[in-house]
Amino acid sequence: MSQIGASKVALSSISSQALWQQTNRLEGYGPELFRFADRKEVPYLLAPTHEEEITTLVSKTIKSYKNLPLRLYQIGRKYRDEIRPRHGVLRSREFLMKDLYTFDYSVQSALSTYEQVRAAYSRLFDELKLPYLVAEASSGDIGGDLSHEYHLPTSIGEDNVINCDSCDYVANEELAATRLNPSEDTPPAEYGDVLTAGVWRGVSKDRSTLINVWYPASYSDDDINSYAIKSVLPELDSSLIDSTPFWSSTSSKTRQPLRLVNIVDYRLGSPFTIALETNPNPKFLLPEGADLDLSIITSDYITTSTNGDPLNLLRIRDGDDCPRCESGKLKVRKAIELGHTFHLGTRYSEPLEAHVQVPKNLIEGDGSTAKSGSMTTVPMQMGCHGIGVSRIIGAVADHLADSKGLNWPRAIAPFEVVVIPGRGLDKESVIVSEYLANSQASRPLDLLLDDRSESLPWKMRDADLIGYPVVVILGKGWSTDRLCEVQCRRLSSVSHVVLEDLPMYINQLLTQL
Amino acid sequence: MSQIGASKVALSSISSQALWQQTNRLEGYGPELFRFADRKEVPYLLAPTHEEEITTLVSKTIKSYKNLPLRLYQIGRKYRDEIRPRHGVLRSREFLMKDLYTFDYSVQSALSTYEQVRAAYSRLFDELKLPYLVAEASSGDIGGDLSHEYHLPTSIGEDNVINCDSCDYVANEELAATRLNPSEDTPPAEYGDVLTAGVWRGVSKDRSTLINVWYPASYSDDDINSYAIKSVLPELDSSLIDSTPFWSSTSSKTRQPLRLVNIVDYRLGSPFTIALETNPNPKFLLPEGADLDLSIITSDYITTSTNGDPLNLLRIRDGDDCPRCESGKLKVRKAIELGHTFHLGTRYSEPLEAHVQVPKNLIEGDGSTAKSGSMTTVPMQMGCHGIGVSRIIGAVADHLADSKGLNWPRAIAPFEVVVIPGRGLDKESVIVSEYLANSQASRPLDLLLDDRSESLPWKMRDADLIGYPVVVILGKGWSTDRLCEVQCRRLSSVSHVVLEDLPMYINQLLTQL
Repeated sequence: MSQIGASKVALSSISSQALWQQTNRLEGYGPELFRFADRKEVPYLLAPTHEEEITTLVSKTIKSYKNLPLRLYQIGRKYRDEIRPRHGVLRSREFLMKDLYTFDYSVQSALSTYEQVRAAYSRLFDELKLPYLVAEASSGDIGGDLSHEYHLPTSIGEDNVINCDSCDYVANEELAATRLNPSEDTPPAEYGDVLTAGVWRGVSKDRSTLINVWYPASYSDDDINSYAIKSVLPELDSSLIDSTPFWSSTSSKTRQPLRLVNIVDYRLGSPFTIALETNPNPKFLLPEGADLDLSIITSDYITTSTNGDPLNLLRIRDGDDCPRCESGKLKVRKAIELGHTFHLGTRYSEPLEAHVQVPKNLIEGDGSTAKSGSMTTVPMQMGCHGIGVSRIIGAVADHLADSKGLNWPRAIAPFEVVVIPGRGLDKESVIVSEYLANSQASRPLDLLLDDRSESLPWKMRDADLIGYPVVVILGKGWSTDRLCEVQCRRLSSVSHVVLEDLPMYINQLLTQL
Repeated sequence: MSQIGASKVALSSISSQALWQQTNRLEGYGPELFRFADRKEVPYLLAPTHEEEITTLVSKTIKSYKNLPLRLYQIGRKYRDEIRPRHGVLRSREFLMKDLYTFDYSVQSALSTYEQVRAAYSRLFDELKLPYLVAEASSGDIGGDLSHEYHLPTSIGEDNVINCDSCDYVANEELAATRLNPSEDTPPAEYGDVLTAGVWRGVSKDRSTLINVWYPASYSDDDINSYAIKSVLPELDSSLIDSTPFWSSTSSKTRQPLRLVNIVDYRLGSPFTIALETNPNPKFLLPEGADLDLSIITSDYITTSTNGDPLNLLRIRDGDDCPRCESGKLKVRKAIELGHTFHLGTRYSEPLEAHVQVPKNLIEGDGSTAKSGSMTTVPMQMGCHGIGVSRIIGAVADHLADSKGLNWPRAIAPFEVVVIPGRGLDKESVIVSEYLANSQASRPLDLLLDDRSESLPWKMRDADLIGYPVVVILGKGWSTDRLCEVQCRRLSSVSHVVLEDLPMYINQLLTQL
């Protein structure tokens, strides 16, 4: 953070609901917000993120482009009323985040900030020396239009990340695409084909639109990608597990105009859509038991994406073709999101009136004819960039643990080295520890001497459980030949080293951890 | 904390109301707790302190006396719905505390822990080099029977601390005593004297007891010490500013038995109490306008403290006699409480069942006849010890600020030294800063180079506002004679020093700051 000129702040965990109403997020977060009132009945919430608070603070302080770019970060607790807290610190209702907020006066400058933050976050995750993935991502509820996610693949992950086995294409499920082959499926043109196609039923959030999603019979409902449906019909209520009760109960609600939308996967082809539109018995447009008069309902058909491309409604599956390279196959991996960078634009600065004065020619570019010195007022261009601190602990623990215990990367280990003395070697272990801690031959080591009054085997097991990167044991080899035993479980290495060589040897191990 | 073997933990800010019910504190804290429910309607609160959480955690982990003493601390946010948040960070609803919790298996060991913590806290406050006071204190709502408060005198303080101008007696208002001179006031014995005595009216929390507090006519209601009344009548509701409405409205509430208690300050003497008991017109026992039938009310009289001493109901005033030495006079000072140590005993370990197994002979002392090896189960002896981290910032700011700006003690200054270059001396200021930061002649200095593009006078004013302990200026003296100007506003010193002497000179200033 210091390399990119970011300053540390500490914002209140308690935020006001009125502030969140100004940015229209109070309802969006809904039941995930812990809400409460103080003794004067003023409504508050426990902040799950701090865009509102930081933007308000900055809008009161920064008035001129001369004070920009501004980069502020904090490391603190966040709160989210998770419906199912699980996997310990991986998904908990109180968690630790590092969040960075950036402020620029132009889009160009904000995008340069974004690239600097991306580079800094990559350097940070590089230090863990773990195979993390950077996925192109949609920005979801936060807003804005440029974002990346940092994922660690792990079996208990809750996100699906798609990467190519040949090129560097990586995307999260929401944005991931496959290379489409419109010719590979033979389009059905008969009424009978319509009956055998798969259909998934949905409903809009306001219950005024009923939705049929048509896909080839060789797939199932589980293959439907709800993000793809939302890309053509944003009003879809994706929180429902079963929407058929709404279809059945809709018949009596004649107050509002009803609409039926058929969304057709490209694999079924246009003859399928024609068969759907012209079929003699419209009953199969409805789920079993629904009693609706289709003649009074407007029917629509969606067969292409918003930019006219073929409409792919199915999730990526292992082995699908990479959209970016010729030969690559896609792989779907369970992963945990550890970090996220967002370019927000003016999503928060506009409603919260975080404006700065800028010379017109700085905003309008070289071609501007604005007189030098002529000023204008613009909302700041913002970015927000989070790292899940407590979540990293959980994800790394899961990723590296083996049957003997945890394994910590050097960068986040409680100590780089533990020194464990055998019986009667307590005094000598102090000398060895001090030698390592103050070594001039290499970087000083961050070490712990386990001087508890337990047996050597007990301490060795405990060191494995805790997962120190390097374990130094003063045992028989020390008593007979002045050799230290150096264990590194992650690298499956055990060596015996003389004291003089120990600092260099351990440092050489640590560069791999 | 490391010197007393304390380990750092981080507890959740969200605590469960059910847990606080087990220790009977949910009602005691009342409206000061921020309470809320999660999406399943489970009741939670934002913890203002963590005895319940830490005791529960320890009770699940520690089962044997062999794992004691145990000392755990955290530095984190606390929450309190203050009725009047004020003075910035001095009294805010979200604040930063360092809280230490100690666990022992015997009272003797717990008291030894208490003394170690007191010594550590004194060393910590000593480092601020400010005239703090350590007061004997009551333990209030926390419970337990041994506690000390650490106060910093300041005009915006909200506590009164009393100290002797001759001996080392210091106490907070609640516990402070004065040397009583029962002979100094001539006791009134006439009915007329009763009429001229001062009376302060109170009422019990359950409204069943009406309270008259009688004191000499030369004092006023403002001189009444509510702690002294509570010491003989704990059920007093001290939160009421005016209790007379309850006196007036009590007449109709005949459901519960009524009681009238007269509490008489020792200065009025026993003849006064007799005059009160035998007076022919009991009307003056009631406030004006109260319409109560005194014949149906039980009347009680309290004239001595619970241990039989003369009953002093008045606050200490400047110049009162010290209770501990012969010649000393007491002084009352406004102060801010920065820290607090408590011996809690089993206040939390009993209700939360935090028990350990101990050999009987360790608990029962040397005289025990218990067989060696015979075990027993005891609740742990606890202590809790807090330091108001954000409050220290506010108190010190107020204590040391002058008309030019803040002044920070070396121990908590953002930087010990700021280096400010004059025009054209930017490069040379880098060399000077690096020389100071890496000086081998003394301890390396923690410094900031102000390389912003502002004028020298602007930066000097800004440095005064921020309050760095030492300011080093490269100005005219540097250009002509290679002399650095060293300013220390708190010590009112300005010197011109050659670079070679600078580290030693600055360190010598810092030892006084």
